[in-house]
Amino acid sequence: MLNFNFYSPTYFAFGKEREKETGKLVKRFGGTKVLIHYGGGSVVKSGLLDRIKKSLQNSGLSFIELGGAVPNPRSGLIYTGIELCKEKNIDFVLAVGGGSAIDSAKAIAVGALYDGDFWDFFTGKTIEKALPIATVLTLTAAGSEGSASMVITHENGMLKRGGYSDLIRPVFSILNPELTYTLPPYQTAAGVADMMAHVMERYFTNTKNVELTDRLGEAVMLTIINETPKVLKNPKDYEARANLMWAGTVAHNDICGAGREQDWASHKMEHEFSGLYDVTHGAGLAVIFPAWMKYVMKQDILRFAQFAVRIWGCEMDFQNPENTAREGIERYEQFMKSIGMPTRLSDLGAKVEDIPMLIDKLQLGDKTLGSFVKLTREDIRKIYELAV
Amino acid sequence: MLNFNFYSPTYFAFGKEREKETGKLVKRFGGTKVLIHYGGGSVVKSGLLDRIKKSLQNSGLSFIELGGAVPNPRSGLIYTGIELCKEKNIDFVLAVGGGSAIDSAKAIAVGALYDGDFWDFFTGKTIEKALPIATVLTLTAAGSEGSASMVITHENGMLKRGGYSDLIRPVFSILNPELTYTLPPYQTAAGVADMMAHVMERYFTNTKNVELTDRLGEAVMLTIINETPKVLKNPKDYEARANLMWAGTVAHNDICGAGREQDWASHKMEHEFSGLYDVTHGAGLAVIFPAWMKYVMKQDILRFAQFAVRIWGCEMDFQNPENTAREGIERYEQFMKSIGMPTRLSDLGAKVEDIPMLIDKLQLGDKTLGSFVKLTREDIRKIYELAV
Repeated sequence: MLNFNFYSPTYFAFGKEREKETGKLVKRFGGTKVLIHYGGGSVVKSGLLDRIKKSLQNSGLSFIELGGAVPNPRSGLIYTGIELCKEKNIDFVLAVGGGSAIDSAKAIAVGALYDGDFWDFFTGKTIEKALPIATVLTLTAAGSEGSASMVITHENGMLKRGGYSDLIRPVFSILNPELTYTLPPYQTAAGVADMMAHVMERYFTNTKNVELTDRLGEAVMLTIINETPKVLKNPKDYEARANLMWAGTVAHNDICGAGREQDWASHKMEHEFSGLYDVTHGAGLAVIFPAWMKYVMKQDILRFAQFAVRIWGCEMDFQNPENTAREGIERYEQFMKSIGMPTRLSDLGAKVEDIPMLIDKLQLGDKTLGSFVKLTREDIRKIYELAV
Repeated sequence: MLNFNFYSPTYFAFGKEREKETGKLVKRFGGTKVLIHYGGGSVVKSGLLDRIKKSLQNSGLSFIELGGAVPNPRSGLIYTGIELCKEKNIDFVLAVGGGSAIDSAKAIAVGALYDGDFWDFFTGKTIEKALPIATVLTLTAAGSEGSASMVITHENGMLKRGGYSDLIRPVFSILNPELTYTLPPYQTAAGVADMMAHVMERYFTNTKNVELTDRLGEAVMLTIINETPKVLKNPKDYEARANLMWAGTVAHNDICGAGREQDWASHKMEHEFSGLYDVTHGAGLAVIFPAWMKYVMKQDILRFAQFAVRIWGCEMDFQNPENTAREGIERYEQFMKSIGMPTRLSDLGAKVEDIPMLIDKLQLGDKTLGSFVKLTREDIRKIYELAV
């Protein structure tokens, strides 16, 4: 086990009608002038935005609104949000929505206290301060409601990049599973693919003897696999939505990564892909991940066999563990297919001839990608080819 | 699943030599004048206390010391600590040791900002403020390094009672597994019994559909069972000590209790017992818990069968699940025995004739104990009798 820090200070208010406590919680965590940031119309149409505004008013808080965050959130709206915060002396950013609204809000919260270009923090600069940020979650997927990370696409070059700091962990997050009832099956399933990937990026590691972290990750994956079909069958199954929603948070607050080297090559390969074609992040991951797994499997056959046995209930082939390892990957692919996810990048609009451009967009230079296997440009090309 | 709040804001600095960062962390979390609170001589003899003092000095922090916290920590020293804090304008309490030193330090941190008797907070009063508290952990067991609770024995009547507030969750905890190398086998095993109990108090519940919380608890229990024999065989097995130490924290920061009714009857029955006879808390739990399980099992045979199958690898008896349930309890008892824990209360000095007194000390009045089965005085008597 490696030395690690684990820090997940977010206050999670989980359950039915918890959004009514928004005002009380903003006050508890020191906000007075709030920017409410959200995406499209569903937050407005459903009446959720009104309920939240009422809660803020009841607590005597002032606020302004900024809607329009899109999937794979863009830099343009973030510059607008930052201006707005500076102009109106905003001291608290409240995101209402899924990972896109939250990540966009995080970038605004960071930029609001910075004189330069917020994009600096996506190209290597360390975040030193940020406005407090909180969330009311409506989409189970990104885990951004409890994470220290954000992913933004810059419109100049459509580069999709991540930023990271404990300062952008939400001070509170409200998780009401009922708010996810209206999520269409495709978005629900893409969320599931993202959640699975958040665990797997941490699970496939070269660090030995991380028994507890392994088993916690397995707990999350088993829950996701168990609950997803129930949710797809009955979108208003509260219990299944609730387990899935909490799994999405635990998958990404880093308890599943404690004490070990993490990989994240698949996420980065997917980012270039969804940055370019603007497909749903989870759908891209559903396709990239099995290709990555097949390509790197031989690095640690027994770890993939463990994944097959403990997660998919495969029988261990002690004569030839590679068979078990392969079976686990196949079961993962079948599961993704069964919940309506694509299995080929071409289903998502990718073309073989775009692969060199996808690799270029990673801007690797002399570096490699990932840690489980350190991928060269050539490795990455082969993985994209396996996935097309 | 029930509505819940999950809040575990502690910054965990985990790994080798992390105690060297004590000063830096105290500073990060706002401390300037520190009370270092610890137990017996081992912290001094091992040189740990000196390393910590040096770290505080290097960060330019002033401090005073108060040693002498004992297992089942007593009220007397807490009154002394509170006086000291008030007199010296202490603004940060640092516990060095195991659950006893930490709980004693938590009570001091609460009492230091209160004009009345700190015991009020153990008899129903709500905690409204406390000095920030942090820990350097040397004993894997109580989980107090990440929990919102403390347990103190008042010398007037030897009543053992708990206090609870998010305000006493440590702001940081340093977990270096090497600091647990010198822990004797009996104390190591008693810690294991305590950790298992922290999960089981939450695991045996009437709340349905708490899939993720179930599986997270199972992850912790499986890890404990897997790692304990390694630690007893080789006390300096870093990896096993590390997994066990992290399991002790996760067992009790309430991630294993999210969204469900918890029980805690066994803990309360044990508290009266160890308050009276001054035995090690974990050893008492090792004996009380199987008696409780046998007594309440019929409340939910399939939950006990799940415990047997998923934790102990028992084969499910589909014809008669009660057999499986019983086998799980037996396997738990065998495990406790195999690690050197007692199996009868009489091994710990208890006498049948003391049972009425133990029940009286619970001061139940008209109330019942626990939630999985609401135990009457008569139920409690039978459980104590099963355990003697």
